[in-house]
Amino acid sequence: MKSIKIFAPATVANLSCGFDVLGCCLDTIGDEMIISITEEPGVKITKIEGADLPFETHKNVAGVAVESFLSAYGKDIGVTIEIYKKIKAGSGIGSSAASSAGAVWAINHLLGNPFTPQKLVEFAMQGEKLASGNAHADNVAPALLGGFTLVRSYSPLDIIKLHSPKDLVMTVIHPQIEVKTSDSRSVIKHNVTLKKAIQQWGNVGGLVAGLFTEDYDLIGRSLEDVIIEPLRSILIPEFDTVKKAAIQKGALGAGISGSGPSIFALSKGMKTANDVADTIKDIYSKTGIDFDIHISKINDQGVKIIN
Amino acid sequence: MKSIKIFAPATVANLSCGFDVLGCCLDTIGDEMIISITEEPGVKITKIEGADLPFETHKNVAGVAVESFLSAYGKDIGVTIEIYKKIKAGSGIGSSAASSAGAVWAINHLLGNPFTPQKLVEFAMQGEKLASGNAHADNVAPALLGGFTLVRSYSPLDIIKLHSPKDLVMTVIHPQIEVKTSDSRSVIKHNVTLKKAIQQWGNVGGLVAGLFTEDYDLIGRSLEDVIIEPLRSILIPEFDTVKKAAIQKGALGAGISGSGPSIFALSKGMKTANDVADTIKDIYSKTGIDFDIHISKINDQGVKIIN
Repeated sequence: MKSIKIFAPATVANLSCGFDVLGCCLDTIGDEMIISITEEPGVKITKIEGADLPFETHKNVAGVAVESFLSAYGKDIGVTIEIYKKIKAGSGIGSSAASSAGAVWAINHLLGNPFTPQKLVEFAMQGEKLASGNAHADNVAPALLGGFTLVRSYSPLDIIKLHSPKDLVMTVIHPQIEVKTSDSRSVIKHNVTLKKAIQQWGNVGGLVAGLFTEDYDLIGRSLEDVIIEPLRSILIPEFDTVKKAAIQKGALGAGISGSGPSIFALSKGMKTANDVADTIKDIYSKTGIDFDIHISKINDQGVKIIN
Repeated sequence: MKSIKIFAPATVANLSCGFDVLGCCLDTIGDEMIISITEEPGVKITKIEGADLPFETHKNVAGVAVESFLSAYGKDIGVTIEIYKKIKAGSGIGSSAASSAGAVWAINHLLGNPFTPQKLVEFAMQGEKLASGNAHADNVAPALLGGFTLVRSYSPLDIIKLHSPKDLVMTVIHPQIEVKTSDSRSVIKHNVTLKKAIQQWGNVGGLVAGLFTEDYDLIGRSLEDVIIEPLRSILIPEFDTVKKAAIQKGALGAGISGSGPSIFALSKGMKTANDVADTIKDIYSKTGIDFDIHISKINDQGVKIIN
């Protein structure tokens, strides 16, 4: 039996202007998983700690992602999965993506990397489909490739790894409220004005350029979402106050992580990220809502082996 | 009297997915201008060759751009402008932008560069406003900064110079038909679906990433416009045939230059760009429509001094 223990990272998707296409990988928050290849064929989830998730393979995102992997791999091998969940479900920082991405990355590693990271994204997307009904890639891509990623296209799937300036630090607040997926979807409009769409793709271009040139100011100026954030932010208590305060404390920009309710603020340097965290804590402490705060550098590696 | 002779380059704006935000600067097609600073105050256009354009300063795009420059400069100096027009009006490769950009660049140079290129873009935009009613920057920005440029935002104006991979070569065909600005505007819809907007900003991100990483394949995959081109291309004879043939001959991608009627094809290497030109010539020769073909590397410098 071959076995590895891995860190399966949390991720921040959307990144303001980059709705549905951009995401980045975190370093200090993530699940742990132990994945093993066994002699007896079949996928088994043998342990789940930290969350109330199904053990049935076809109902578990990691199980579904692994089945998708094995179906392409073609050989009848056995896999056992242990999940030590640290990322809370429904937090908006890629909880399901971490499990899907972690599981397929680990098996690929144990088998001598028969598949490219791009292909692993496809398998992990099947887990996302189970979790949300939509096989989106904007969390599993950064979890698997690390750093900042762009989903240029879904048909065909085309994932681009961008450059990660090393001083970027994320502060993420997770307010422990439930935002129903149906609510966070229903506020989005199917049509947008061309004018706003142009503003948005100008900012996407600026953000990508800022990442490659390590122009932190440009990154900050580009972290602007004129389409989704104005609609979705009303579902997140104190969003505007948190965003404004984070930027006043020196954050380059702030926005909704995934479909919320987590809010991210991106800063240059750990000191600013800590200051931003303190400010957000102050604001949220007054609301009576429980919350977690995460501070993390960008994890340029993605899923990784731990002891 | 101080005087310089300059090359004022043609430019390709929009670049498929980058409608209204992306543009690039050409090297083998452009106007020539002689700009002088004189003792007698006032802006005078003393010579225009190659086009039937107004000599009255306030009716001439170069005149208007220079007036805008001088108004910010604050000193009462004299300027004479000679224009040797080579870019045909209405071609869709930045004819008016070349005149506006060339004039303000030259005066700035003669005065010891009191203004940044970004500021020059603002002055030159006044010429564009006269030409089209709309102070757009997507031609004057690449003419002034060279290479590929992104207009991240208009309010405030934020122009970003991108990286230009050195093997990129443009083939541009200008079919000598008139496409009325009112027609090319009226076919555009004010609303787009969010789905198409996301595809478009995925491609903008991919194109910018491809330019910075010199990933020619990615540049090609990203040269896709799902919003404007399907509507505007019907105004350009043989657009689909030309685009398809260019890509078959090896072009990375092709699209409408500016608001047309010119069509651009972007290739890696001069040989492919020449092959593409030959193919396009074959197609257009059969239409009975007069046309010009330009083949040009990307001009990373923008406006430049010539002897």
